[in-house]
Amino acid sequence: MTGRLTIAGLGPGGEGLVTPEVTAALADATDVVGYIPYVSRVADRVGLTKHASDNRVEIDRSNHALTLTAEGRRVVVVSSGDPGVFAMASAVFEALEDGPETWRDLEINVLPGVSAMFAAAARAGAPLGHDFCAINLSDNLKPWTLIEKRLRLAVEADFACAFYNPRSKARPEGFLRVLEVLAQSCEPERLITFARAVSTSEEVLTTVPLIEAKPEMADMRTLVILGSSRTRLIERAGQQPIVYTPRSVPE
Amino acid sequence: MTGRLTIAGLGPGGEGLVTPEVTAALADATDVVGYIPYVSRVADRVGLTKHASDNRVEIDRSNHALTLTAEGRRVVVVSSGDPGVFAMASAVFEALEDGPETWRDLEINVLPGVSAMFAAAARAGAPLGHDFCAINLSDNLKPWTLIEKRLRLAVEADFACAFYNPRSKARPEGFLRVLEVLAQSCEPERLITFARAVSTSEEVLTTVPLIEAKPEMADMRTLVILGSSRTRLIERAGQQPIVYTPRSVPE
Repeated sequence: MTGRLTIAGLGPGGEGLVTPEVTAALADATDVVGYIPYVSRVADRVGLTKHASDNRVEIDRSNHALTLTAEGRRVVVVSSGDPGVFAMASAVFEALEDGPETWRDLEINVLPGVSAMFAAAARAGAPLGHDFCAINLSDNLKPWTLIEKRLRLAVEADFACAFYNPRSKARPEGFLRVLEVLAQSCEPERLITFARAVSTSEEVLTTVPLIEAKPEMADMRTLVILGSSRTRLIERAGQQPIVYTPRSVPE
Repeated sequence: MTGRLTIAGLGPGGEGLVTPEVTAALADATDVVGYIPYVSRVADRVGLTKHASDNRVEIDRSNHALTLTAEGRRVVVVSSGDPGVFAMASAVFEALEDGPETWRDLEINVLPGVSAMFAAAARAGAPLGHDFCAINLSDNLKPWTLIEKRLRLAVEADFACAFYNPRSKARPEGFLRVLEVLAQSCEPERLITFARAVSTSEEVLTTVPLIEAKPEMADMRTLVILGSSRTRLIERAGQQPIVYTPRSVPE
Protein backbone atom coordinates (compact mmCIF):
# COMPACT_ATOMS: atom_id res chain seq x y z
CA MET A 1 0.00 0.00 0.00
CA THR A 2 1.31 3.45 -0.91
CA GLY A 3 0.73 6.01 1.78
CA ARG A 4 -1.12 9.21 1.19
CA LEU A 5 -1.66 12.20 3.44
CA THR A 6 -4.74 14.38 3.01
CA ILE A 7 -5.22 17.53 5.06
CA ALA A 8 -8.95 18.16 4.96
CA GLY A 9 -11.30 20.90 6.10
CA LEU A 10 -14.57 19.70 7.63
CA GLY A 11 -16.23 23.11 7.43
CA PRO A 12 -17.58 24.95 10.47
CA GLY A 13 -19.84 22.19 11.80
CA GLY A 14 -22.94 21.63 9.69
CA GLU A 15 -22.90 18.43 7.64
CA GLY A 16 -24.34 20.31 4.66
CA LEU A 17 -21.07 22.24 4.49
CA VAL A 18 -18.72 19.25 4.10
CA THR A 19 -17.54 19.06 0.49
CA PRO A 20 -17.98 15.82 -1.48
CA GLU A 21 -14.21 15.51 -2.00
CA VAL A 22 -13.62 15.60 1.76
CA THR A 23 -16.38 13.02 2.30
CA ALA A 24 -14.72 10.80 -0.31
CA ALA A 25 -11.27 11.17 1.29
CA LEU A 26 -12.68 10.18 4.67
CA ALA A 27 -14.43 7.16 3.14
CA ASP A 28 -11.10 5.99 1.71
CA ALA A 29 -8.95 6.66 4.80
CA THR A 30 -7.32 4.08 7.05
CA ASP A 31 -6.51 6.69 9.70
CA VAL A 32 -7.99 9.99 10.83
CA VAL A 33 -5.83 12.32 12.90
CA GLY A 34 -6.86 15.52 14.61
CA TYR A 35 -8.07 17.51 17.58
CA ILE A 36 -10.62 15.57 19.66
CA PRO A 37 -13.85 17.42 18.70
CA TYR A 38 -13.02 17.32 14.98
CA VAL A 39 -12.09 13.62 14.95
CA SER A 40 -15.35 12.90 16.77
CA ARG A 41 -17.24 14.36 13.79
CA VAL A 42 -15.99 11.46 11.64
CA ALA A 43 -18.26 8.40 11.85
CA ASP A 44 -16.72 5.14 13.10
CA ARG A 45 -16.40 2.30 10.62
CA VAL A 46 -14.51 -0.97 10.24
CA GLY A 47 -11.02 -0.36 8.88
CA LEU A 48 -10.76 3.21 10.16
CA THR A 49 -8.52 4.06 13.10
CA LYS A 50 -9.17 7.38 14.80
CA HIS A 51 -6.30 9.22 16.48
CA ALA A 52 -7.67 12.10 18.55
CA SER A 53 -5.36 14.44 20.42
CA ASP A 54 -5.71 17.50 22.60
CA ASN A 55 -5.26 21.13 21.65
CA ARG A 56 -1.78 22.71 21.38
CA VAL A 57 0.02 19.53 20.24
CA GLU A 58 -0.19 20.33 16.54
CA ILE A 59 3.43 19.45 15.73
CA ASP A 60 3.31 16.12 17.60
CA ARG A 61 0.07 15.34 15.76
CA SER A 62 1.65 16.29 12.42
CA ASN A 63 4.69 14.09 13.04
CA HIS A 64 2.35 11.23 13.90
CA ALA A 65 0.36 11.71 10.70
CA LEU A 66 3.50 11.89 8.55
CA THR A 67 4.93 8.77 10.23
CA LEU A 68 1.72 6.82 9.56
CA THR A 69 1.78 7.99 5.94
CA ALA A 70 5.41 6.92 5.53
CA GLU A 71 4.33 3.48 6.80
CA GLY A 72 1.95 3.27 3.84
CA ARG A 73 -1.34 4.30 5.41
CA ARG A 74 -4.00 6.57 3.92
CA VAL A 75 -4.16 9.31 6.52
CA VAL A 76 -6.58 12.22 6.73
CA VAL A 77 -5.70 15.07 9.08
CA VAL A 78 -8.93 16.88 9.89
CA SER A 79 -9.38 20.55 10.69
CA SER A 80 -12.50 22.54 11.33
CA GLY A 81 -13.35 25.12 8.66
CA ASP A 82 -10.61 25.40 6.06
CA PRO A 83 -7.36 23.57 6.91
CA GLY A 84 -5.22 26.43 5.59
CA VAL A 85 -6.70 29.10 7.87
CA PHE A 86 -5.19 29.05 11.38
CA ALA A 87 -5.41 25.27 11.26
CA MET A 88 -3.47 22.08 10.56
CA ALA A 89 -2.00 22.59 7.07
CA SER A 90 0.78 24.93 8.16
CA ALA A 91 1.56 22.71 11.17
CA VAL A 92 1.97 19.65 8.94
CA PHE A 93 4.30 21.55 6.59
CA GLU A 94 6.38 22.82 9.52
CA ALA A 95 6.78 19.20 10.67
CA LEU A 96 7.52 18.07 7.11
CA GLU A 97 10.26 20.67 6.66
CA ASP A 98 11.89 19.72 9.99
CA GLY A 99 11.48 15.96 9.49
CA PRO A 100 13.32 13.23 7.58
CA GLU A 101 14.19 14.05 3.95
CA THR A 102 12.16 11.01 2.80
CA TRP A 103 8.93 12.64 3.98
CA ARG A 104 9.23 15.07 1.04
CA ASP A 105 8.49 12.19 -1.35
CA LEU A 106 5.11 11.47 0.24
CA GLU A 107 1.90 12.24 -1.62
CA ILE A 108 0.26 15.11 0.24
CA ASN A 109 -2.94 16.95 -0.67
CA VAL A 110 -4.77 19.78 1.02
CA LEU A 111 -8.55 19.79 0.54
CA PRO A 112 -10.10 23.19 1.16
CA GLY A 113 -13.23 23.62 3.25
CA VAL A 114 -15.85 26.23 4.00
CA SER A 115 -14.06 28.52 6.43
CA ALA A 116 -15.60 29.72 9.68
CA MET A 117 -15.12 33.31 8.53
CA PHE A 118 -17.13 32.90 5.33
CA ALA A 119 -19.82 30.81 7.04
CA ALA A 120 -20.18 33.53 9.69
CA ALA A 121 -20.22 36.26 7.05
CA ALA A 122 -22.91 34.39 5.10
CA ARG A 123 -25.14 34.19 8.16
CA ALA A 124 -24.71 37.91 8.85
CA GLY A 125 -25.21 38.94 5.21
CA ALA A 126 -22.03 39.96 3.41
CA PRO A 127 -19.78 41.95 5.77
CA LEU A 128 -16.66 40.71 3.94
CA GLY A 129 -18.01 41.77 0.52
CA HIS A 130 -15.17 44.26 -0.05
CA ASP A 131 -11.44 44.10 0.82
CA PHE A 132 -10.83 42.42 4.17
CA CYS A 133 -8.27 40.76 6.42
CA ALA A 134 -8.14 37.88 8.87
CA ILE A 135 -6.20 38.10 12.12
CA ASN A 136 -5.70 35.43 14.76
CA LEU A 137 -6.02 37.24 18.10
CA SER A 138 -4.22 34.55 20.08
CA ASP A 139 -0.74 35.52 21.25
CA ASN A 140 0.31 31.89 21.78
CA LEU A 141 2.42 31.97 18.62
CA LYS A 142 3.21 35.66 18.06
CA PRO A 143 3.97 38.72 20.17
CA TRP A 144 1.05 40.80 21.38
CA THR A 145 2.67 43.95 19.98
CA LEU A 146 2.35 42.48 16.47
CA ILE A 147 -1.38 41.87 16.99
CA GLU A 148 -1.88 45.51 18.01
CA LYS A 149 0.21 46.74 15.07
CA ARG A 150 -1.85 44.69 12.62
CA LEU A 151 -5.12 45.91 14.13
CA ARG A 152 -4.09 49.53 13.68
CA LEU A 153 -2.89 49.02 10.11
CA ALA A 154 -6.01 47.04 9.19
CA VAL A 155 -8.23 49.88 10.41
CA GLU A 156 -6.05 52.43 8.61
CA ALA A 157 -6.48 50.41 5.40
CA ASP A 158 -10.24 50.34 6.14
CA PHE A 159 -10.39 46.56 5.75
CA ALA A 160 -13.30 44.66 7.21
CA CYS A 161 -11.68 42.23 9.66
CA ALA A 162 -12.37 38.63 10.66
CA PHE A 163 -10.92 37.83 14.06
CA TYR A 164 -10.16 34.22 15.00
CA ASN A 165 -9.61 32.98 18.57
CA PRO A 166 -10.75 36.22 20.21
CA ARG A 167 -10.74 34.96 23.75
CA SER A 168 -9.81 32.00 25.92
CA LYS A 169 -9.61 31.18 29.60
CA ALA A 170 -5.83 31.48 29.35
CA ARG A 171 -6.08 35.01 27.87
CA PRO A 172 -9.11 36.69 29.44
CA GLU A 173 -7.70 40.21 29.04
CA GLY A 174 -6.60 40.11 25.38
CA PHE A 175 -9.93 40.78 23.75
CA LEU A 176 -10.64 43.68 26.11
CA ARG A 177 -7.40 45.23 24.90
CA VAL A 178 -8.42 44.57 21.27
CA LEU A 179 -11.69 46.43 21.80
CA GLU A 180 -9.77 49.33 23.37
CA VAL A 181 -7.42 49.54 20.37
CA LEU A 182 -10.37 49.46 17.96
CA ALA A 183 -12.22 52.13 19.96
CA GLN A 184 -9.21 54.43 19.53
CA SER A 185 -9.23 54.14 15.74
CA CYS A 186 -12.84 53.43 14.68
CA GLU A 187 -15.98 55.54 14.97
CA PRO A 188 -18.29 54.39 17.84
CA GLU A 189 -21.05 53.23 15.48
CA ARG A 190 -18.73 50.86 13.56
CA LEU A 191 -20.55 47.52 13.25
CA ILE A 192 -19.15 44.42 14.92
CA THR A 193 -20.67 40.94 14.64
CA PHE A 194 -20.17 38.08 17.08
CA ALA A 195 -20.88 34.76 15.36
CA ARG A 196 -20.80 31.78 17.72
CA ALA A 197 -20.84 28.12 16.62
CA VAL A 198 -22.13 28.96 13.14
CA SER A 199 -23.97 26.13 11.34
CA THR A 200 -24.41 24.12 14.57
CA SER A 201 -27.44 23.83 16.86
CA GLU A 202 -25.73 26.30 19.21
CA GLU A 203 -25.40 29.08 16.65
CA VAL A 204 -25.88 32.63 17.95
CA LEU A 205 -25.32 35.82 15.96
CA THR A 206 -25.20 39.30 17.47
CA THR A 207 -24.34 42.58 15.74
CA VAL A 208 -23.80 45.77 17.74
CA PRO A 209 -22.10 49.14 17.27
CA LEU A 210 -18.50 48.95 18.47
CA ILE A 211 -19.27 51.20 21.45
CA GLU A 212 -21.62 48.51 22.80
CA ALA A 213 -19.21 45.59 22.29
CA LYS A 214 -18.14 43.79 25.48
CA PRO A 215 -15.35 41.22 25.87
CA GLU A 216 -17.78 38.60 27.21
CA MET A 217 -19.66 38.64 23.88
CA ALA A 218 -16.85 36.39 22.54
CA ASP A 219 -15.43 33.04 23.54
CA MET A 220 -13.17 30.54 21.73
CA ARG A 221 -16.08 29.34 19.57
CA THR A 222 -16.81 32.87 18.37
CA LEU A 223 -15.73 34.37 15.07
CA VAL A 224 -15.77 38.16 15.29
CA ILE A 225 -16.26 40.34 12.20
CA LEU A 226 -15.50 44.04 12.38
CA GLY A 227 -17.01 46.00 9.52
CA SER A 228 -15.15 48.58 7.49
CA SER A 229 -16.21 52.23 7.75
CA ARG A 230 -18.67 51.52 4.92
CA THR A 231 -20.35 48.41 6.36
CA ARG A 232 -24.12 48.86 6.67
CA LEU A 233 -27.05 47.28 8.48
CA ILE A 234 -30.49 46.69 6.95
CA GLU A 235 -33.20 46.34 9.60
CA ARG A 236 -36.00 43.85 8.91
CA ALA A 237 -39.24 43.40 10.83
CA GLY A 238 -39.30 40.04 12.62
CA GLN A 239 -36.09 38.86 10.98
CA GLN A 240 -32.42 39.17 11.78
CA PRO A 241 -30.87 42.32 10.28
CA ILE A 242 -28.58 42.06 7.27
CA VAL A 243 -25.00 43.30 7.69
CA TYR A 244 -23.13 43.93 4.47
CA THR A 245 -20.28 45.89 2.98
CA PRO A 246 -21.00 47.54 -0.38
CA ARG A 247 -18.75 46.58 -3.28
CA SER A 248 -17.74 50.12 -4.12
CA VAL A 249 -15.84 53.00 -2.57
CA PRO A 250 -16.54 56.37 -4.22
CA GLU A 251 -13.67 58.60 -5.38
CA MET B 1 -45.92 29.54 -3.22
CA THR B 2 -43.81 31.63 -0.87
CA GLY B 3 -40.76 33.05 -2.54
CA ARG B 4 -37.29 32.42 -1.27
CA LEU B 5 -33.97 33.88 -2.37
CA THR B 6 -30.78 31.91 -1.88
CA ILE B 7 -27.40 33.40 -2.72
CA ALA B 8 -25.14 30.40 -3.23
CA GLY B 9 -21.45 29.82 -3.80
CA LEU B 10 -20.61 27.12 -6.36
CA GLY B 11 -16.96 26.90 -5.32
CA PRO B 12 -14.09 27.52 -7.72
CA GLY B 13 -15.10 25.03 -10.41
CA GLY B 14 -14.60 21.42 -9.38
CA GLU B 15 -17.81 19.52 -8.69
CA GLY B 16 -16.19 17.91 -5.62
CA LEU B 17 -16.10 21.38 -4.06
CA VAL B 18 -19.85 22.14 -4.25
CA THR B 19 -21.37 21.79 -0.78
CA PRO B 20 -24.38 19.50 -0.24
CA GLU B 21 -26.52 22.43 0.96
CA VAL B 22 -25.87 24.30 -2.29
CA THR B 23 -26.67 21.18 -4.32
CA ALA B 24 -29.94 20.85 -2.37
CA ALA B 25 -30.86 24.50 -2.93
CA LEU B 26 -30.29 24.14 -6.67
CA ALA B 27 -32.41 20.97 -6.76
CA ASP B 28 -35.30 22.87 -5.12
CA ALA B 29 -35.03 26.07 -7.20
CA THR B 30 -37.49 27.31 -9.80
CA ASP B 31 -35.04 29.93 -11.11
CA VAL B 32 -31.28 30.28 -11.27
CA VAL B 33 -29.83 33.75 -11.82
CA GLY B 34 -26.22 34.69 -12.46
CA TYR B 35 -23.28 35.44 -14.70
CA ILE B 36 -23.29 33.28 -17.86
CA PRO B 37 -20.42 30.87 -17.03
CA TYR B 38 -21.72 30.21 -13.51
CA VAL B 39 -25.33 29.61 -14.60
CA SER B 40 -24.03 27.21 -17.25
CA ARG B 41 -22.56 25.07 -14.44
CA VAL B 42 -26.11 24.27 -13.26
CA ALA B 43 -27.65 21.29 -15.06
CA ASP B 44 -30.85 21.83 -17.01
CA ARG B 45 -34.01 20.16 -15.69
CA VAL B 46 -37.76 20.43 -16.10
CA GLY B 47 -39.16 23.16 -13.87
CA LEU B 48 -35.95 25.15 -13.71
CA THR B 49 -35.61 28.45 -15.57
CA LYS B 50 -32.09 29.73 -16.06
CA HIS B 51 -31.46 33.49 -16.30
CA ALA B 52 -27.90 34.11 -17.44
CA SER B 53 -26.54 37.64 -17.78
CA ASP B 54 -23.27 39.24 -18.74
CA ASN B 55 -20.59 40.65 -16.48
CA ARG B 56 -20.92 44.12 -14.88
CA VAL B 57 -24.73 44.05 -14.60
CA GLU B 58 -24.77 42.86 -11.00
CA ILE B 59 -27.40 45.35 -9.77
CA ASP B 60 -29.79 44.66 -12.68
CA ARG B 61 -29.35 40.95 -12.02
CA SER B 62 -30.02 41.46 -8.30
CA ASN B 63 -33.18 43.46 -8.97
CA HIS B 64 -34.35 40.71 -11.29
CA ALA B 65 -33.71 38.02 -8.66
CA LEU B 66 -35.51 40.03 -5.95
CA THR B 67 -38.47 40.68 -8.27
CA LEU B 68 -38.80 36.97 -9.08
CA THR B 69 -38.62 36.16 -5.36
CA ALA B 70 -41.33 38.71 -4.56
CA GLU B 71 -43.48 36.97 -7.18
CA GLY B 72 -43.21 33.80 -5.12
CA ARG B 73 -40.46 31.94 -6.91
CA ARG B 74 -37.60 29.97 -5.33
CA VAL B 75 -34.60 31.77 -6.74
CA VAL B 76 -30.94 30.85 -6.44
CA VAL B 77 -28.38 33.51 -7.34
CA VAL B 78 -25.16 31.70 -8.15
CA SER B 79 -21.61 32.97 -7.67
CA SER B 80 -18.32 31.28 -8.23
CA GLY B 81 -16.31 30.56 -5.08
CA ASP B 82 -17.92 32.08 -2.01
CA PRO B 83 -20.81 34.48 -2.71
CA GLY B 84 -19.67 36.90 -0.01
CA VAL B 85 -16.17 37.44 -1.46
CA PHE B 86 -16.13 39.98 -4.32
CA ALA B 87 -19.31 38.34 -5.61
CA MET B 88 -23.09 38.56 -5.68
CA ALA B 89 -24.12 38.75 -2.00
CA SER B 90 -23.18 42.41 -1.54
CA ALA B 91 -24.75 43.32 -4.88
CA VAL B 92 -28.07 41.74 -3.86
CA PHE B 93 -28.06 43.59 -0.54
CA GLU B 94 -27.28 46.90 -2.27
CA ALA B 95 -30.30 46.31 -4.52
CA LEU B 96 -32.42 45.25 -1.54
CA GLU B 97 -31.58 48.40 0.41
CA ASP B 98 -32.39 50.64 -2.56
CA GLY B 99 -35.51 48.70 -3.56
CA PRO B 100 -39.16 48.59 -2.38
CA GLU B 101 -39.66 48.33 1.39
CA THR B 102 -41.58 45.05 0.89
CA TRP B 103 -38.40 43.31 -0.32
CA ARG B 104 -37.13 43.42 3.28
CA ASP B 105 -39.78 40.85 4.26
CA LEU B 106 -38.46 38.26 1.80
CA GLU B 107 -36.74 35.13 3.04
CA ILE B 108 -33.09 35.47 2.01
CA ASN B 109 -30.24 33.09 2.78
CA VAL B 110 -26.58 33.18 1.85
CA LEU B 111 -24.93 29.76 1.45
CA PRO B 112 -21.15 29.93 1.76
CA GLY B 113 -18.86 28.16 -0.68
CA VAL B 114 -15.24 27.15 -1.02
CA SER B 115 -13.57 30.41 -2.00
CA ALA B 116 -11.10 30.71 -4.86
CA MET B 117 -8.50 32.04 -2.42
CA PHE B 118 -8.64 29.03 -0.12
CA ALA B 119 -8.79 26.56 -3.01
CA ALA B 120 -5.70 28.21 -4.52
CA ALA B 121 -3.94 28.24 -1.16
CA ALA B 122 -4.72 24.54 -0.65
CA ARG B 123 -3.19 23.67 -4.02
CA ALA B 124 -0.03 25.66 -3.20
CA GLY B 125 0.27 24.30 0.34
CA ALA B 126 -0.74 26.77 3.05
CA PRO B 127 0.46 30.28 2.12
CA LEU B 128 -2.48 31.83 4.05
CA GLY B 129 -1.70 29.85 7.21
CA HIS B 130 -1.01 32.99 9.25
CA ASP B 131 -2.70 36.44 9.25
CA PHE B 132 -3.67 37.55 5.74
CA CYS B 133 -5.78 39.92 3.68
CA ALA B 134 -7.77 39.83 0.46
CA ILE B 135 -7.75 42.74 -1.98
CA ASN B 136 -9.68 43.12 -5.22
CA LEU B 137 -7.24 44.73 -7.67
CA SER B 138 -9.93 45.98 -10.03
CA ASP B 139 -10.48 49.73 -9.96
CA ASN B 140 -13.94 49.46 -11.49
CA LEU B 141 -15.57 50.16 -8.12
CA LYS B 142 -12.92 52.03 -6.14
CA PRO B 143 -10.17 54.56 -6.78
CA TRP B 144 -6.75 53.28 -7.78
CA THR B 145 -5.13 55.34 -5.01
CA LEU B 146 -7.02 53.26 -2.44
CA ILE B 147 -5.68 50.03 -3.96
CA GLU B 148 -2.11 51.31 -3.69
CA LYS B 149 -2.68 52.51 -0.12
CA ARG B 150 -4.02 49.10 0.91
CA LEU B 151 -1.12 47.31 -0.76
CA ARG B 152 1.41 49.38 1.17
CA LEU B 153 -0.40 48.93 4.50
CA ALA B 154 -0.85 45.19 3.92
CA VAL B 155 2.89 44.78 3.34
CA GLU B 156 3.67 46.95 6.36
CA ALA B 157 1.41 44.68 8.45
CA ASP B 158 3.26 41.70 6.93
CA PHE B 159 0.02 40.03 5.89
CA ALA B 160 0.08 37.36 3.24
CA CYS B 161 -2.22 38.72 0.50
CA ALA B 162 -4.75 37.12 -1.83
CA PHE B 163 -5.35 39.30 -4.89
CA TYR B 164 -8.59 38.95 -6.86
CA ASN B 165 -9.11 40.23 -10.41
CA PRO B 166 -5.45 41.06 -10.99
CA ARG B 167 -5.75 41.86 -14.66
CA SER B 168 -8.22 42.30 -17.48
CA LYS B 169 -8.22 43.50 -21.05
CA ALA B 170 -9.77 46.76 -19.86
CA ARG B 171 -6.96 47.33 -17.33
CA PRO B 172 -3.76 45.92 -18.83
CA GLU B 173 -1.48 48.28 -16.91
CA GLY B 174 -2.91 47.91 -13.37
CA PHE B 175 -1.12 44.72 -12.39
CA LEU B 176 2.22 46.03 -13.65
CA ARG B 177 1.78 48.96 -11.27
CA VAL B 178 0.87 46.53 -8.44
CA LEU B 179 4.09 44.61 -9.00
CA GLU B 180 6.04 47.89 -8.94
CA VAL B 181 4.46 48.91 -5.63
CA LEU B 182 5.22 45.51 -4.14
CA ALA B 183 8.81 45.63 -5.40
CA GLN B 184 9.28 48.91 -3.53
CA SER B 185 8.18 47.42 -0.20
CA CYS B 186 9.03 43.69 -0.31
CA GLU B 187 12.37 41.89 -0.50
CA PRO B 188 13.10 40.51 -4.02
CA GLU B 189 12.87 36.86 -2.92
CA ARG B 190 9.34 37.29 -1.52
CA LEU B 191 7.24 34.36 -2.82
CA ILE B 192 4.31 35.01 -5.14
CA THR B 193 1.98 32.31 -6.48
CA PHE B 194 -0.15 32.56 -9.61
CA ALA B 195 -3.06 30.10 -9.40
CA ARG B 196 -5.12 29.92 -12.56
CA ALA B 197 -8.48 28.14 -12.88
CA VAL B 198 -7.95 26.08 -9.72
CA SER B 199 -9.90 22.79 -9.53
CA THR B 200 -10.71 22.83 -13.26
CA SER B 201 -9.04 20.97 -16.12
CA GLU B 202 -7.18 24.19 -16.98
CA GLU B 203 -5.53 24.58 -13.58
CA VAL B 204 -1.97 25.95 -13.60
CA LEU B 205 0.05 26.90 -10.53
CA THR B 206 3.31 28.84 -10.63
CA THR B 207 5.34 30.18 -7.71
CA VAL B 208 8.27 32.53 -8.25
CA PRO B 209 10.26 35.09 -6.26
CA LEU B 210 8.68 38.52 -6.60
CA ILE B 211 11.62 39.77 -8.67
CA GLU B 212 10.72 37.23 -11.38
CA ALA B 213 6.99 38.05 -11.43
CA LYS B 214 5.66 39.43 -14.72
CA PRO B 215 2.23 41.00 -15.37
CA GLU B 216 1.43 38.42 -18.05
CA MET B 217 1.59 35.63 -15.45
CA ALA B 218 -1.93 36.73 -14.41
CA ASP B 219 -5.24 37.05 -16.20
CA MET B 220 -8.83 37.41 -14.95
CA ARG B 221 -9.00 33.71 -14.08
CA THR B 222 -5.90 33.95 -11.89
CA LEU B 223 -5.86 34.26 -8.12
CA VAL B 224 -2.54 35.71 -6.97
CA ILE B 225 -1.14 35.00 -3.51
CA LEU B 226 1.73 37.09 -2.17
CA GLY B 227 3.46 35.49 0.79
CA SER B 228 4.35 37.33 3.97
CA SER B 229 8.02 37.87 4.79
CA ARG B 230 7.95 34.48 6.56
CA THR B 231 6.38 32.40 3.77
CA ARG B 232 8.59 29.45 2.81
CA LEU B 233 9.00 27.01 -0.04
CA ILE B 234 9.76 23.29 0.36
CA GLU B 235 11.31 21.79 -2.77
CA ARG B 236 10.32 18.22 -3.68
CA ALA B 237 11.88 15.96 -6.31
CA GLY B 238 9.41 15.30 -9.13
CA GLN B 239 6.55 17.02 -7.36
CA GLN B 240 5.29 20.58 -7.14
CA PRO B 241 6.94 22.54 -4.31
CA ILE B 242 4.97 23.32 -1.16
CA VAL B 243 4.47 26.99 -0.29
CA TYR B 244 3.42 27.68 3.28
CA THR B 245 3.43 30.33 5.97
CA PRO B 246 4.42 29.11 9.43
CA ARG B 247 1.90 29.64 12.21
CA SER B 248 4.27 31.53 14.47
CA VAL B 249 6.22 34.78 14.52
CA PRO B 250 9.05 34.84 17.08
CA GLU B 251 9.38 37.70 19.59
